[in-house]
Amino acid sequence: MQTDVHINTLVIVGPGLIGGSVAAALKKHQRVERVIGVGRNPASLEHARSLGLIDEVLPLAEATAQADMILLAMPVGATATVLAELSPHLRPHTVVTDAGSTKADVVAAVYQTLPKAQWPQFVPAHPIAGSEATGPEAASAELYVDRKVILTPTEHTASWAVKPVSALWESCGARILRMDADTHDRVLASVSHVPHFLSAVYMWQVASAQDAECRLDVAGSGFRDFTRIAAGSAEVWRDIFLSNREAVLAELKAVREAFEQAETALADADADQLERFLERAALARRLWGSRSGLR
Amino acid sequence: MQTDVHINTLVIVGPGLIGGSVAAALKKHQRVERVIGVGRNPASLEHARSLGLIDEVLPLAEATAQADMILLAMPVGATATVLAELSPHLRPHTVVTDAGSTKADVVAAVYQTLPKAQWPQFVPAHPIAGSEATGPEAASAELYVDRKVILTPTEHTASWAVKPVSALWESCGARILRMDADTHDRVLASVSHVPHFLSAVYMWQVASAQDAECRLDVAGSGFRDFTRIAAGSAEVWRDIFLSNREAVLAELKAVREAFEQAETALADADADQLERFLERAALARRLWGSRSGLR
Repeated sequence: MQTDVHINTLVIVGPGLIGGSVAAALKKHQRVERVIGVGRNPASLEHARSLGLIDEVLPLAEATAQADMILLAMPVGATATVLAELSPHLRPHTVVTDAGSTKADVVAAVYQTLPKAQWPQFVPAHPIAGSEATGPEAASAELYVDRKVILTPTEHTASWAVKPVSALWESCGARILRMDADTHDRVLASVSHVPHFLSAVYMWQVASAQDAECRLDVAGSGFRDFTRIAAGSAEVWRDIFLSNREAVLAELKAVREAFEQAETALADADADQLERFLERAALARRLWGSRSGLR
Repeated sequence: MQTDVHINTLVIVGPGLIGGSVAAALKKHQRVERVIGVGRNPASLEHARSLGLIDEVLPLAEATAQADMILLAMPVGATATVLAELSPHLRPHTVVTDAGSTKADVVAAVYQTLPKAQWPQFVPAHPIAGSEATGPEAASAELYVDRKVILTPTEHTASWAVKPVSALWESCGARILRMDADTHDRVLASVSHVPHFLSAVYMWQVASAQDAECRLDVAGSGFRDFTRIAAGSAEVWRDIFLSNREAVLAELKAVREAFEQAETALADADADQLERFLERAALARRLWGSRSGLR
């Protein structure tokens, strides 16, 4: 495990929950000299500065010209625009990385907007951590402790660029996994995007019912847990679904088939089939809970 | 609010998590003299006694003959059997109540198994609280604090029987709601049974995938929350689904329609429609979170 990263000038584009938490962790462990914040919302940037997450605020071009590492932590839909804008100012040994929830579209944006000579400098990454809370005020030096970060370097990514990105996330307390961008998107469609979709569909259906008030009045802790993710930012999740549309649709199809199979067992009052499916789900979830450290 | 209940002899049939937590709360607040445990598992009963939840263990007939109140806290599928067995020994002023997750089937069991003269003594009830943990070792005097308990008295239930049941649950820290059994079952199908069904269907689908290991390795806190309920007892939930089959099927149909509508928006890459549905879900969930005290 390599954790001896030290960054002179780190630029964070969008220092909210995700980027601000990286800054908080690196500062706590004295892994960074100076953090420059870049963003479109002056009040949020000023807030990040008053919280000590960033040291100064600069326009993207100026910040890029001084950066040793650039972390893109704004919504994933803005990646191509930001890359096109920073590219002319990028020094040859600056590492650029991101924290987007989808990876194939980020890699495509790199190929479309950066000249080929800069492709080695870009390290696509996705920290599996988050919260319904947003903004720099929700940032925490502990957000990534014991969480996983997936790196999806391409055939063009330089190993000298991957190393400090790995080390950065390890300094935040995270564990590194590596896979290709398509595998990442397929797997995340299954374990992150589809749960959000189902939770939101369900919450929408309940809230649209005529007797919604009465329903919501008796909802308990199971409802609370099941719907927690549905409170997440609609804008962020719209972008995630659109960015990873095909993989999500493929998973939704598989889930709908499982849904209909279980629904048929219930319609037929097939107690054995119903118990088999519930038992398999319960065992798999308990096993995951004891293995994942995320009970 | 009436909380001045005092029970001389309380019989708990099935003193596990649900019944044991009632005993713990009543003992903590000195609302009961003596608790008799009844059940089919001697080791579990002995465990409940060693934890101080129950004072002694008796067969159902003997316990019934001494009871001032009887709380049925075993799986709901056993209700008719237990009622038939206790009926001949039931004294005329003993109150019988239950804690089952469905109510129309419990009311039906009362009408089928008890003579009409005993119908006034039965108070159908459902505490909206629980945990994936089971057994007396999971019992807690705090389980019902700030939770809701739904009473569904029938046209035959005596008000002298409802009062001490209300007071019992209020002594445990819960808030009482009243509705009829059919409304209860419809509302609970929506906010409790359908979430369990969806969570289990989803967990089953993920665990059945060829690359399940890889998927489960990157699953994070959203997955954890969304699937937590799927770990619940397959036997208990099979009974709940079968007991409330029609109401659950009606809700599943409505959820499937919402699912397909959202899926179409995604397939069409309809960003506006997608964001509208996500935004509506997010707002409804945040509002519920701030109102319910169950964030």
